[in-house]
Amino acid sequence: MSTDQQESDGATRVANITSRRRIVTVLFDGFELLDVFGPLELYGVLSDHFQISLIGPQPGPVMSSQGPAAHADHAYHDAPRPDIVLVPGGMGTRALAQDQAWLQWLADWSTPAELITSVCTGSALLAAAGLLDGYRATSNKRAFVWAAAQGPDVEWIPTARWVEDRNRWTSSGVAAGMDMTLAIISRLHGSELANTLADAVEYDPHTDAAWDPYAEKSGLTGSD
Amino acid sequence: MSTDQQESDGATRVANITSRRRIVTVLFDGFELLDVFGPLELYGVLSDHFQISLIGPQPGPVMSSQGPAAHADHAYHDAPRPDIVLVPGGMGTRALAQDQAWLQWLADWSTPAELITSVCTGSALLAAAGLLDGYRATSNKRAFVWAAAQGPDVEWIPTARWVEDRNRWTSSGVAAGMDMTLAIISRLHGSELANTLADAVEYDPHTDAAWDPYAEKSGLTGSD
Repeated sequence: MSTDQQESDGATRVANITSRRRIVTVLFDGFELLDVFGPLELYGVLSDHFQISLIGPQPGPVMSSQGPAAHADHAYHDAPRPDIVLVPGGMGTRALAQDQAWLQWLADWSTPAELITSVCTGSALLAAAGLLDGYRATSNKRAFVWAAAQGPDVEWIPTARWVEDRNRWTSSGVAAGMDMTLAIISRLHGSELANTLADAVEYDPHTDAAWDPYAEKSGLTGSD
Repeated sequence: MSTDQQESDGATRVANITSRRRIVTVLFDGFELLDVFGPLELYGVLSDHFQISLIGPQPGPVMSSQGPAAHADHAYHDAPRPDIVLVPGGMGTRALAQDQAWLQWLADWSTPAELITSVCTGSALLAAAGLLDGYRATSNKRAFVWAAAQGPDVEWIPTARWVEDRNRWTSSGVAAGMDMTLAIISRLHGSELANTLADAVEYDPHTDAAWDPYAEKSGLTGSD
């Protein structure tokens, strides 16, 4: 097998990186598939920069909103220390946003991380855990009113593909997580690598954090 | 929980559909994450139209190229009858394209399906199994030369986001699978539903099957 073939399918390799950041993804019953696997495709191709862990209620399969199950490597109580926390959305957020013990665990475990990130209604969980108090943030546009209600001390931004505020990054719904992830990779490792990665997986990203036609489609325009 | 909240996070529901198509996704060690979960996000949201099964070497976790594992519901030998076959790409295709017994199983099991589809280098497996002989098809642009070599009797199209030829649909690399999936959904259920779905998951699709800047970036232009 030639090097050319080994580098195909998006499997870009970057040599001479000795320190990898650990992305820990928080799975729960009813997570949204693409919220998790859009970002993990992108981080995962850059395996010399990032290592991926998935955590859940227990090790083993965790069922998505769409049915297919992902495999958690560790239980929450046994979660590795994260460099980057990734909290997806999905219908499972509705129960967890009421679970004070779980939210306290999320806050305690996430706070030391270099970056705390969410996709879609994952920001409702960060907000309910107090992790966005005093920060600007966004969320899925169709669930925006519900998400915003989870964090009265958050400055919610309706029209945004993603919002970065210090070390908190929150994206809009589902597919927006891929654009936010490329922006994070660009910030950490430069735009040239992010662009090479997007080309490798044949993804045509939105690179403007303010691009968001879905806010208006969901009737949110003017509510900011 | 309000209906509004239940319909958020992309979970569009369409009532009064009594017959659902079964999408069966063929997992294998070294499958590409987004090749699988981009399409399954889209099919999965339309749960009144589609039901999802995942099959693998055995029931249980199957590891992706990027590391995270998906959970197979059935072993290949126990696979349900598919309405739509979805074969992803990934580095695991390189070994399977040489596995004559597996390819024969794939051909026998897939042939009765209404649609036989692939993402990325999944088309190399369809080709190696003879399922694309006499058909037009495309593949991942960085692995195109290798993929094309698996099917000398296939009319390979280098510049294409996806290619439809009778009941065979093949997409270009990784993210292209989402655009092909929306085109399939549009064909089966109309463009209005496909557009509603794309908005629900905040995905901005390419709807032109001929859009493909990656062929030129990979030096394939003019080789057709």
